[in-house]
Amino acid sequence: MEGVDHLASERSRAQFDVEEMKVVWAGSRHALEVSDRISRLVASDPAFRKDNRTSLSRKELFKNTLRKTAHAWKRITELRLSEEEASRLRFYVDEPAFTDLHWGMFIPAIKGQGTEEQLQKWLPLAYKMQIIGCYAQTELGHGSNVQGLETTATFDPQTDEFIIHSPTLTSSKWWPGGLGKVSTHAVIYARLIIDGQDYGVNGFIVQLRSLDDHLPLPGITVGDIGMKFGSGAYNTMDNGVLRFDHVRIPRDQMLMRVSQVTREGKFVQSNVPRQLVYGTMVYVRQTIVADASCALSRAVCIATRYSAVRRQFGSQNGGVETQVIDYKTQQSRLFPLLASAYAFRFVGEWLKWLYTDVTQRLQANDFTTLPEAHACTAGLKSLTTSATADGIEECRKLCGGHGYLCSSGLPELFAVYVPACTYEGDNIVLLLQVARFLMKTVSQLGSGKKPVGTTAYMVRVEQLMQCRCAVQRAEDWLKPSVILEAFEARSARMSVACAQNLANFANPEEGFLELSADLTEAAVAHCQLIVVSKFIEKLKQDIPGKGVKEQLEILCNIYALFLLHKHLGDFLKTGCISPKQASLANDQLRSLYSQVRPNVITLVDAFNYTDHFLGSVLGRYDGNVYPKLYEEAWKDPLNDSVVPDGYQEYILPMLKQQLRNARL
Amino acid sequence: MEGVDHLASERSRAQFDVEEMKVVWAGSRHALEVSDRISRLVASDPAFRKDNRTSLSRKELFKNTLRKTAHAWKRITELRLSEEEASRLRFYVDEPAFTDLHWGMFIPAIKGQGTEEQLQKWLPLAYKMQIIGCYAQTELGHGSNVQGLETTATFDPQTDEFIIHSPTLTSSKWWPGGLGKVSTHAVIYARLIIDGQDYGVNGFIVQLRSLDDHLPLPGITVGDIGMKFGSGAYNTMDNGVLRFDHVRIPRDQMLMRVSQVTREGKFVQSNVPRQLVYGTMVYVRQTIVADASCALSRAVCIATRYSAVRRQFGSQNGGVETQVIDYKTQQSRLFPLLASAYAFRFVGEWLKWLYTDVTQRLQANDFTTLPEAHACTAGLKSLTTSATADGIEECRKLCGGHGYLCSSGLPELFAVYVPACTYEGDNIVLLLQVARFLMKTVSQLGSGKKPVGTTAYMVRVEQLMQCRCAVQRAEDWLKPSVILEAFEARSARMSVACAQNLANFANPEEGFLELSADLTEAAVAHCQLIVVSKFIEKLKQDIPGKGVKEQLEILCNIYALFLLHKHLGDFLKTGCISPKQASLANDQLRSLYSQVRPNVITLVDAFNYTDHFLGSVLGRYDGNVYPKLYEEAWKDPLNDSVVPDGYQEYILPMLKQQLRNARL
Repeated sequence: MEGVDHLASERSRAQFDVEEMKVVWAGSRHALEVSDRISRLVASDPAFRKDNRTSLSRKELFKNTLRKTAHAWKRITELRLSEEEASRLRFYVDEPAFTDLHWGMFIPAIKGQGTEEQLQKWLPLAYKMQIIGCYAQTELGHGSNVQGLETTATFDPQTDEFIIHSPTLTSSKWWPGGLGKVSTHAVIYARLIIDGQDYGVNGFIVQLRSLDDHLPLPGITVGDIGMKFGSGAYNTMDNGVLRFDHVRIPRDQMLMRVSQVTREGKFVQSNVPRQLVYGTMVYVRQTIVADASCALSRAVCIATRYSAVRRQFGSQNGGVETQVIDYKTQQSRLFPLLASAYAFRFVGEWLKWLYTDVTQRLQANDFTTLPEAHACTAGLKSLTTSATADGIEECRKLCGGHGYLCSSGLPELFAVYVPACTYEGDNIVLLLQVARFLMKTVSQLGSGKKPVGTTAYMVRVEQLMQCRCAVQRAEDWLKPSVILEAFEARSARMSVACAQNLANFANPEEGFLELSADLTEAAVAHCQLIVVSKFIEKLKQDIPGKGVKEQLEILCNIYALFLLHKHLGDFLKTGCISPKQASLANDQLRSLYSQVRPNVITLVDAFNYTDHFLGSVLGRYDGNVYPKLYEEAWKDPLNDSVVPDGYQEYILPMLKQQLRNARL
Repeated sequence: MEGVDHLASERSRAQFDVEEMKVVWAGSRHALEVSDRISRLVASDPAFRKDNRTSLSRKELFKNTLRKTAHAWKRITELRLSEEEASRLRFYVDEPAFTDLHWGMFIPAIKGQGTEEQLQKWLPLAYKMQIIGCYAQTELGHGSNVQGLETTATFDPQTDEFIIHSPTLTSSKWWPGGLGKVSTHAVIYARLIIDGQDYGVNGFIVQLRSLDDHLPLPGITVGDIGMKFGSGAYNTMDNGVLRFDHVRIPRDQMLMRVSQVTREGKFVQSNVPRQLVYGTMVYVRQTIVADASCALSRAVCIATRYSAVRRQFGSQNGGVETQVIDYKTQQSRLFPLLASAYAFRFVGEWLKWLYTDVTQRLQANDFTTLPEAHACTAGLKSLTTSATADGIEECRKLCGGHGYLCSSGLPELFAVYVPACTYEGDNIVLLLQVARFLMKTVSQLGSGKKPVGTTAYMVRVEQLMQCRCAVQRAEDWLKPSVILEAFEARSARMSVACAQNLANFANPEEGFLELSADLTEAAVAHCQLIVVSKFIEKLKQDIPGKGVKEQLEILCNIYALFLLHKHLGDFLKTGCISPKQASLANDQLRSLYSQVRPNVITLVDAFNYTDHFLGSVLGRYDGNVYPKLYEEAWKDPLNDSVVPDGYQEYILPMLKQQLRNARL
């Protein structure tokens, strides 16, 4: 059976060119070429093998990751990879490690908040990995509320130093990746105290460990915070705990781009706009949205291929059973996730553009679009990560019992992905930020201040409050204008309803707290509109290959009508559509599932994932699932011996009724 | 801080007696006494310690479980525990093990399908654990579709034996717990073949391993299928793979209560009703519903206590921050899960009664209620396990970042629970069975055949198709009659709509497949109605203590109105309620959250879980979360040394730029 493509007949049914779709998915021919080359490089290197990861003990697992990061760095330098290529390589190694934080948080934090001299001093060391850094913000007692951090940095004018200190147990730094066992340095966030006065939270570069013997420096207590969700998964990372006992650092290790402390202990604000911080947030959250589409598409690829291989029920007279992918119950759960993966990919692409746009405006001192861009990225981070976490688990369930095996790849994918719902802003807290922005937008509608960017539709609020959906036949639901109007009307009406209910409260803050559950729903409606509208915009671009565009249109409609079905209560209670129109949308959705069905295997092939990256027996490109599942099973350490360790002490005495005198 | 109850002020606010509620939750004073005594026995025995479970390698973990099962059996025999007590003890040990299958599947299968002689021969051996058995039904290629199993049992009239054989790779037995490394025997399901004719799937007792040295008997290949979801979790269990190469067993090891094979090779059906199988299914699924309420209540207990300890945001002028449990966003996610835990508990209690009722009827040869009871238990299994799996993960997210730590107990609880959505009937397949039964019920409405049991409301279908919800003020939603009518109308209208749409298809089976997604939604509506109505019925019983009953009424209303909000599309599209009434329900729900708020800590105390059983730093009874989190962290094996294993080989050369020549 080796070498046979069990999915060949599925692939022959595709109505578009997979190579064209690969380019669309990758974003450009260049991006595809780099991804393709680097992913094969990683897949073909036995040092990057990852199939044994889930059965290792914590220590073995962690040491194995240290080996891989060192090997990756060796290859990066040997092959003189570009920054883009190096980043792709770390991505395809597919194992959380301290390097993620070093490159993704420590260096960007210095870049964003350091002065020119600080950049010149620290960046060359970091780029060559002569120091390894992490990003230490959250504390045991403080996550979302950054302003509540307790760690202090007290200026000592005598010595021109800051004294970094953890005054309470809850002020222990807690969670930073790379902190527990590896980092030599960290950007630490602490309350700046000068002469007894609190100047709020600032960033400081602090050395944690000796560069000679890796021992923690005096006054520093540091360790790993212990096992996290899943086997393998994030346990390759040394998320850490850190306490300071009056640790002194030179004054010039405060990151001073935005605020400075002078030799005399004077606190000075520079004229660099503080809004710069939001620019960085837009950047980080844009990468999270891109990661969401990647994680979801992996899960969808596995579940789709396996659903085409797996057969169950439906055989007549002992013939072959039906492929589970042909069941409407399977399609109605799986195909919307396939559509979501594409939708998130395109909204991620657009966010990249938005970041560029925001950056250019910031440089021109134009802050007008920043609040909208910030709300929008916060909302999209929340929406896409929640949907992706749920979607991965749904894909696992769609694989039936076998999805519960680690060899399916799905348990680890889920466990490693879910923290995205919490880090860089808890998803509910972020939705409340979006809601706050929406309420502000609604309240200003009469004032002549025009809503911008993704809230521009609000300018037509009066029309949107009254419009009636024009759908009369199921096919009417295929029109982008119809879909857009329904989603705009739903979002506008939910926001307006919230604003009206808020107006009944004497104290607006109290009202906001009381109605916060409704407000998050309005925020979700707004964010879903963004994703739908960016998908529709994408379809207006020049997409080569007729078949490609048609498939994307089908996926776009599936995504929109699936959301409409899932949130039907929203659309009906606001009177945006009628029950009859809801029923027509449902009919159309079923028909779209049938249309996309012959193409789904090729649509997941277009993600261009190697079998190494997928890490799933169920998701193998060749569909040769059963022999490989069987083969994988025997690799478990428990199968090293036929009779298990413990038989003599525990099983035999039980069978022989000799437990009574045993010491257990 | 040791010994201080950080949740004391929360507990002092309760408006009911926790001891009374404990009895209600346990079901009786006797059940509470047994649970309380046995759970303390387990918690106080250091041999049952489980806090180190997640950082062990597979082999260590498995051996550790063998030790615990032996110790548990030793204690059970030493203390001469009753069957009920022994079962409780295994439950509180809280670790999946081969004994679950031995007691829960192997023995019941023999009891249910064996003849008197077979019971006399095998049960005494099994009761004393002189043999250890498992239940081998599913195969690598065959799960839900039992009729598709491929393993064969061919009768050899020459030797009076059956030849058990695995003809294909996909016929390998796959998944049975206890099979991989421990069981000496198994009940095997195989196609009975006599003289070339296939008599369908039957059960056979087959010895797998030698009772002397535990080696597999000739012709048997057996092993573990490898790592499953999560660290710890189900990896304590040896789910197995098993292949037969023409293994011979005596004829009298076919389980012959329902069908027999005579010495001459004649296949005979006994007059024992085949419907008995359904009786067993009702029993097994009833225990699954009870387990659901247990698993969900554990997660809710952890999330509720931690939400009262955790504070974030909302401080004015540096005062203490707000308890996160006081945020409406937290309440609107957590309190419905608390209500669900109680709802599932009571519907589980009712299912116990249903099982007794069904058994008595079967004994009186009354099969009239069986199809309804079977559909109802299938549906409730699906509904409660899906809601519980999702609910546990929601509780984990409600604990923010710290919920991702294994020391929160929630990752392992999720990983160990989710297979319940797949085993004993995939949840979607089960909903389709319910839907099939509902369609049959609807189609017979005109025929004079009265719907029974949980479908009895369908007799009023004409009224339910037309009724209009009477709610005018938010408080109207507190009336049980109003809630019941809305849920009955929604379910009836969805079923009738499906039946009408099915009638448009020339081929009903084709229609059923095409509309299966809608049909599962109708099934869910019906099952939710059952849970709501059983909660309401429970409230009509004599519940001692006024405060207790009031709290349960609040929880019942929260459960119902939360479902109404979640499935608002159903209620609106069928015209059961108006958008205005939906909005009033929402207002009432918020008010109910405020009412239950002072009681939630005591409502989770009423589950009476020991800290050992909860296994969660976040869910500790005394709320002393932060010091214990900090303490737990240091126990991770990675913290055994300050400088991690691998520093010399991998980190140091990186820092010193000496990787180039390293062998990695």
